[in-house]
Amino acid sequence: MSSNYRNFRNNVPWLILFLEAVFIVLFYFLFSDDGASISSISYPAFQDVNHMVIFGFGFFLMSLKRYGFSSTGFNLLIVVLGVQCSMLVEGLLVFLLQREKEDGLKRITKAVVSVTAVVISTGAVLGKTNPVQFILMTVVEIIVFPMSRWINNTFLQVPDNISMMHVHLFGAYFGLAVSSRFSEPSPKSEKNASTPKSDLLSMLGTLFLWVFWPSFNSVLAVKDKSKAIYNTYFALAVSAVTAFVLSVLTTKDGKFRMTHIHSAVLAGGVTVGYAAHSIKYPWIAMILGLLASATTVLGSYCLQRCLNPALKIHDSSGVHFTFGLPGVLGALAQVILLVIKNWTNLTRLGYLVMLHVGAFCLTISVALITGFITG
Amino acid sequence: MSSNYRNFRNNVPWLILFLEAVFIVLFYFLFSDDGASISSISYPAFQDVNHMVIFGFGFFLMSLKRYGFSSTGFNLLIVVLGVQCSMLVEGLLVFLLQREKEDGLKRITKAVVSVTAVVISTGAVLGKTNPVQFILMTVVEIIVFPMSRWINNTFLQVPDNISMMHVHLFGAYFGLAVSSRFSEPSPKSEKNASTPKSDLLSMLGTLFLWVFWPSFNSVLAVKDKSKAIYNTYFALAVSAVTAFVLSVLTTKDGKFRMTHIHSAVLAGGVTVGYAAHSIKYPWIAMILGLLASATTVLGSYCLQRCLNPALKIHDSSGVHFTFGLPGVLGALAQVILLVIKNWTNLTRLGYLVMLHVGAFCLTISVALITGFITG
Amino acid sequence: MSSNYRNFRNNVPWLILFLEAVFIVLFYFLFSDDGASISSISYPAFQDVNHMVIFGFGFFLMSLKRYGFSSTGFNLLIVVLGVQCSMLVEGLLVFLLQREKEDGLKRITKAVVSVTAVVISTGAVLGKTNPVQFILMTVVEIIVFPMSRWINNTFLQVPDNISMMHVHLFGAYFGLAVSSRFSEPSPKSEKNASTPKSDLLSMLGTLFLWVFWPSFNSVLAVKDKSKAIYNTYFALAVSAVTAFVLSVLTTKDGKFRMTHIHSAVLAGGVTVGYAAHSIKYPWIAMILGLLASATTVLGSYCLQRCLNPALKIHDSSGVHFTFGLPGVLGALAQVILLVIKNWTNLTRLGYLVMLHVGAFCLTISVALITGFITG
Repeated sequence: MSSNYRNFRNNVPWLILFLEAVFIVLFYFLFSDDGASISSISYPAFQDVNHMVIFGFGFFLMSLKRYGFSSTGFNLLIVVLGVQCSMLVEGLLVFLLQREKEDGLKRITKAVVSVTAVVISTGAVLGKTNPVQFILMTVVEIIVFPMSRWINNTFLQVPDNISMMHVHLFGAYFGLAVSSRFSEPSPKSEKNASTPKSDLLSMLGTLFLWVFWPSFNSVLAVKDKSKAIYNTYFALAVSAVTAFVLSVLTTKDGKFRMTHIHSAVLAGGVTVGYAAHSIKYPWIAMILGLLASATTVLGSYCLQRCLNPALKIHDSSGVHFTFGLPGVLGALAQVILLVIKNWTNLTRLGYLVMLHVGAFCLTISVALITGFITG
Repeated sequence: MSSNYRNFRNNVPWLILFLEAVFIVLFYFLFSDDGASISSISYPAFQDVNHMVIFGFGFFLMSLKRYGFSSTGFNLLIVVLGVQCSMLVEGLLVFLLQREKEDGLKRITKAVVSVTAVVISTGAVLGKTNPVQFILMTVVEIIVFPMSRWINNTFLQVPDNISMMHVHLFGAYFGLAVSSRFSEPSPKSEKNASTPKSDLLSMLGTLFLWVFWPSFNSVLAVKDKSKAIYNTYFALAVSAVTAFVLSVLTTKDGKFRMTHIHSAVLAGGVTVGYAAHSIKYPWIAMILGLLASATTVLGSYCLQRCLNPALKIHDSSGVHFTFGLPGVLGALAQVILLVIKNWTNLTRLGYLVMLHVGAFCLTISVALITGFITG
Repeated sequence: MSSNYRNFRNNVPWLILFLEAVFIVLFYFLFSDDGASISSISYPAFQDVNHMVIFGFGFFLMSLKRYGFSSTGFNLLIVVLGVQCSMLVEGLLVFLLQREKEDGLKRITKAVVSVTAVVISTGAVLGKTNPVQFILMTVVEIIVFPMSRWINNTFLQVPDNISMMHVHLFGAYFGLAVSSRFSEPSPKSEKNASTPKSDLLSMLGTLFLWVFWPSFNSVLAVKDKSKAIYNTYFALAVSAVTAFVLSVLTTKDGKFRMTHIHSAVLAGGVTVGYAAHSIKYPWIAMILGLLASATTVLGSYCLQRCLNPALKIHDSSGVHFTFGLPGVLGALAQVILLVIKNWTNLTRLGYLVMLHVGAFCLTISVALITGFITG
């Protein structure tokens, strides 16, 4: 294995360098305008999302002992590669389909949001893949996700900012599909142990994500930004409360279990993402937050006992409960809200519901299929 | 004690869940508008205050060893409960008094600023109460503080943004009053020890608070925001310098004593809070910062020797020096600045001074009385 | 040494207190207006720069074991002293030269950017000086840098925001010049050891700097802010990728070497600083980022073997590679871009090139000379 390993170690930098060279050449051809018109994205909002991806997810994934130190660095590497790749794919789509060009800041913001999918998938396969596989996964996922979004936008007429929110779903199920193709590491392995220090950093990451989530949900909204912020805040608040409560109730010794809190605190933000700009009253967002958090904690409780051994899924960072299930719930909630809003007009209602369910199924199936192939 | 403890542990989650259910129901009745009009609060400023409360105070209170890990999580729980509760009380006051409705973002911002009082009080009683007592304290304080502010606003005609700055005073004295009702833990107890690591996190929290303080002082100012930022920055700068100097001078071995720096660095921001938008020249803010820092360090030096044993106050996190004394100094400075500004018009001067002193006394006495009762 | 040390320890606080008193008196005379007009600097952008200086550099310099804890605190002290001093010097220049007055927020922002020079110099001499020397260095550097900038602005007609970007060059070479006057500590000394924990904090600081760098490069730009952000982001992204690649290639065991990543990740941001607002296409910024990162890693590789022993330079935190070399490269790139842009008009071209090269030489020579004298 030694020579094999050295050989492989030697390949990683050349692979990255090659990718980077391809990126620069493609940037030369694709982005010949300077993209400096006035942006609809405010710079502080972009910074918030940037923060989230670099710090929030970087620390969030630090919960495994062995990855403490390098995971933050590696996260940075994957994010910058992913952002460049995502901008290129978007640029190519704009070029091929003769779509309207977007300004520079909006392009980067969309790329950073897309990269969230990769970072979430990374969480699912952490500890099972080597860097080359990671980088290939990043490239494949970043190419497939905009295509899935493009199909949603064009054929199913889902608005751009909502199709972007499928990022959690896509990331989680892509990661799980990839993850299921790898053999499960022995549960007693040191790699999955967590230390108090890594737990603390992980908590820090969760707090970062919690604080910046309203920015994430509102940054791409065209209108009603403040409504999206408002609703996301309440969903997150109730979600945090429920996470603490359920964490105490589901453990025997009545102590906070960090893994639960970790996942469930954010569930509200994920769930409310699809509908944040269209929810009228804060109490709806609050109930969604409550349900999301409950789903996450109970889901993690049940899944770890029943489903995972059966399907041989091994999910290192609980990506399935944190992003997958709340994403499904959010898509469901969005459909229900649509039904309530449009129940007088049944034709239109059926059409809308079909579109949303279609977009949802498409995203998940694309994620699962490409995930399996990549795996 | 064991069964008692288990019993109590079982009650906490149900209590929180009950509170949360009440909140959702009340939100349903009180906030039937969507609160999405254009806000006078900019979103980045709100984010700064949100950061301060979640990260700054979360880490600031981490200085005790035992609370390192859970204090950040618990802080989040108290903040989200407090914010919801505070919004409800404000919403109730708006409803009962037929006041003008505010937009969503401003409501949350005010609620987050109010919650600062609770977080400060928490610092005073840390290590002496159990979670149920914490949550009850939160609810009582969040109900009493807006009432104290409402009396100030209505009968003493204190502007809204200034009455909000009484949050430090209220929080500190409420916490002290509650704290004095609990028996002092044995000083040698492990709970009050601090480790290098917790000190580092505490320093991190202090830096967070230091950096975001100008946002805190300016977020609710209706006009002269940039003046408030400018003055707060200078007060904080001088305060930090003085903190380092006095810390070296008051210790025998001439080393920085973290506890002093910790408290005194922020004193300038607290003191200048009342008058930040009305101070004309930066040198006034600088002198205030100097005085505030000196008061804090000398206060902590004297109080811990003389006053605390006499009054049986036990103040786990030095809340009295950090927020109480600088708050008193700030209120005093505001009155002096008023005297200087209006000394030609003696009638008006007397009236104004009376109002401010009245507001100050009211806030402290309400804080002390309700604190005792809660204790 | 003991009495000497105690004597010196006793002097530090009085020196700082004296400085602070002088500052307050000078502020009284110089800033008699309230500086509260509407600013061209947005408050969130100022906050980002403030964050960078307090957190980013504070942690970045934490890589040496012994300075872990106090370096963050000491960094704060130096920053606040430097900001006040820098504002005074600028205020004096405005007063003496009858220049147009700037608003309060812009003044502070410029002062904070200037202080970056001091913080960078601090990195070079860390571990070799005592606090008194640090503070003297701060004061001298803060007085000399605006003068160097003033000469650049007045005689060489360099725009204000570009002369500000000389801050990295000035800081690095000033620090190196000062550093070369001190004897090199023994390489095995415990002071230069780094621990995993301090490495982690250092990585955290690097991430902070990385995330906030676009704000740093764009905050003082008068127009084309979004272009500056856009270009800086790409330069940083490619720089980060290159840093990881080269770090693996230059080490024998094929592992990431934190020191390299640490420095090289930021090199792109430094290099692109001069030209960020005038680069038209992102691919130029990307190539600059690539070159900057390569220069840094290879530079650190060669310099540590050849040049440092010869010139007896001892550079505790790698300031030379991180800020010095990329700064030189950036100035060079700016000249080359100018040449490409203006090659049709040879007279004007020669004039412009001369100006920029002049400004560059001036900055470095002033930095080196005053650095030697200070040392």
